[in-house]
Amino acid sequence: MSSTAGQVIRCKAAVAWEAGKPLVIEEVEVAPPQKMEVRLKILYTSLCHTDVYFWEANKGQNTVFPRILGHEAGAIVESIGEGVTDLAPGDHVLPVFTGECKECAHCKSAVSNMCSLLRINTDRGVMIHDEKSRFSIKGKPIYHFLGTSTFSEYTVVHVGCVAKINPLAPLEKVCVLSCGISTGLGATLNVAKPEKGSTVAVFGLGAVGLAAAEGARIAGASRIIGVDLNASRFLPAKKFGVTEFVNPKDYNKPVQEVIAEMTNGGVDRSIECTGNVDAMISAFECVHDGWGVAVLVGVPHKDAVFKTRPINFLNERTLKGTFFGNYKPRSDIPSVVEKYMNKELEVEKFITHEVSFSEINKAFDYMLKGEGIRCIIRMEG
Amino acid sequence: MSSTAGQVIRCKAAVAWEAGKPLVIEEVEVAPPQKMEVRLKILYTSLCHTDVYFWEANKGQNTVFPRILGHEAGAIVESIGEGVTDLAPGDHVLPVFTGECKECAHCKSAVSNMCSLLRINTDRGVMIHDEKSRFSIKGKPIYHFLGTSTFSEYTVVHVGCVAKINPLAPLEKVCVLSCGISTGLGATLNVAKPEKGSTVAVFGLGAVGLAAAEGARIAGASRIIGVDLNASRFLPAKKFGVTEFVNPKDYNKPVQEVIAEMTNGGVDRSIECTGNVDAMISAFECVHDGWGVAVLVGVPHKDAVFKTRPINFLNERTLKGTFFGNYKPRSDIPSVVEKYMNKELEVEKFITHEVSFSEINKAFDYMLKGEGIRCIIRMEG
Repeated sequence: MSSTAGQVIRCKAAVAWEAGKPLVIEEVEVAPPQKMEVRLKILYTSLCHTDVYFWEANKGQNTVFPRILGHEAGAIVESIGEGVTDLAPGDHVLPVFTGECKECAHCKSAVSNMCSLLRINTDRGVMIHDEKSRFSIKGKPIYHFLGTSTFSEYTVVHVGCVAKINPLAPLEKVCVLSCGISTGLGATLNVAKPEKGSTVAVFGLGAVGLAAAEGARIAGASRIIGVDLNASRFLPAKKFGVTEFVNPKDYNKPVQEVIAEMTNGGVDRSIECTGNVDAMISAFECVHDGWGVAVLVGVPHKDAVFKTRPINFLNERTLKGTFFGNYKPRSDIPSVVEKYMNKELEVEKFITHEVSFSEINKAFDYMLKGEGIRCIIRMEG
Repeated sequence: MSSTAGQVIRCKAAVAWEAGKPLVIEEVEVAPPQKMEVRLKILYTSLCHTDVYFWEANKGQNTVFPRILGHEAGAIVESIGEGVTDLAPGDHVLPVFTGECKECAHCKSAVSNMCSLLRINTDRGVMIHDEKSRFSIKGKPIYHFLGTSTFSEYTVVHVGCVAKINPLAPLEKVCVLSCGISTGLGATLNVAKPEKGSTVAVFGLGAVGLAAAEGARIAGASRIIGVDLNASRFLPAKKFGVTEFVNPKDYNKPVQEVIAEMTNGGVDRSIECTGNVDAMISAFECVHDGWGVAVLVGVPHKDAVFKTRPINFLNERTLKGTFFGNYKPRSDIPSVVEKYMNKELEVEKFITHEVSFSEINKAFDYMLKGEGIRCIIRMEG
């Protein structure tokens, strides 16, 4: 038992008081974990575009303030609440923005990771056990984000949203496997499943798209075609296995036609990581008839409509969507960490910046400027 | 060697002289098979909706007259052309409207059956070897249909469009496995692949849809929901394993919502066999998130557009199309015949009518009136 178990912990957290304003490091009170919850000491966290999206809150997204953002992190269990049996203080873990209750139809399905109980909920700012926040400042609640709120030295998370990982794994690196990198990697390895020697197109060369390309590299794809409107992303993408680049702006015909011409009828697999509905349509229509599989990862505007001619399906193309790379957080994420440990997956190249916790707003600046891929935020020192 | 090998054969054929007019039994000359062709003696043929569609030729479909229609049949090889090594006179076969050259990328793919050389071509009225017809009346060519033209006592077919089957199989029954029944059966067994105990929706209870339901029955589905606008199709569908019926006309909300309510969120698998684009959208949107797979079989109007919100994919639904149930004609159709031989697949219940060759126009009447499922046409007696 840690000496803090059962006690309120006072610690530093970066609070988003209002939309679009710099986070403020505050002293917060973190209540002990309740039933089926664990309290984590965050050692490293990283910034993902989803944090920025809900912080900006200027595109109609629902959000709630004041809130503690953050959902990619490496942490150690400080204490556990009632009913928690498979985690203990001292365990090394990654908190995850979506969960796995292990009881619902989705968790019992061999393929789904869309847990009915703990599926991502961007609106919720409280814990599901009692619909209250575990964070407060002078008695006033500060709300949770994605059930993780990792921009705090301590946080409380449902046990179903915690992946217990190899304690030898360096948390300052594997923390990025909490969300975006696993999302792209799993889209390729778990859903698109390219065979060795196949051709793969990746739409969007941000962190998720680069992770999708890394998945294709690991799978032994012979050609990995990166598609992006931003030409400056092409050179860095080479490190992730991308062999050819297509900028749709360079052509006066649909990019699916360009890709079909490059590949004798289409790629074997495509992975769409932009969320733009026109890119989704291109990603589907650029796969080869007979066997092509397109996988949608990027989240579109809620009013977007996907349109295509049915013959594109009838000619034996497959279109699938994925959420978090189809990884089940507790069952599967430990194995992604092992892919790093056995040198199959290269995590270091995703990490382009590092700041201390007090400089967390710098991480937001890097992301807003489109600089780099992932910025690690050190909670100590 | 048969005594007719290498000779022109004079025999009876049902000629479609012009669109929508009754077929006329004529004496035709059937030339010997050329390179990579075989000449077949047709014993039994059956009428499929595609024959009627290209005979009516009133919906903008390209067609060519005079033509010998027909593409579902049971036959015996009469003679073989140059280069044919895997068929011999006397072999029992099913001619197929699409082929398998065994050389192209599609044939070498483990999943595709869309052979580059011999893929279905509804416009072509000649053989690919010399772009000529093998049928003539007094020197004037009568055109082929789908490379099969089974409404003739003898026909010439490319060897890649011929499935060699178990000689013990009764041709008067297994002839219906040439097209529609295999299309529906394969859509379920090869593409949708429902697990034992799962729920399956089938849109459209014509021959193809009933065969899709039969596939679900064979796979051990616990619930098979038949969807059709024609209530008279419900009772006969029970023989094919359909356990529940939904007529979209009976509800004032989208049928995908009706099905989701019946099944606690959606069916595990759906198979669309109507070709109506709204039914396609319903068939996709009625599968369960997390694991649902929808399979499109029916061929839509060429201007139809499939539309859905991308979130329906991102919630881990899969949409696939299939052609001929993903069966490779030569490699796989013999095994479908074996499913009948070992009593797994019940073929008899698809056969509702039988006529002699001289009465072939009656078969067209039954189909136009929507009576029955398959009408067998006996070439002899």
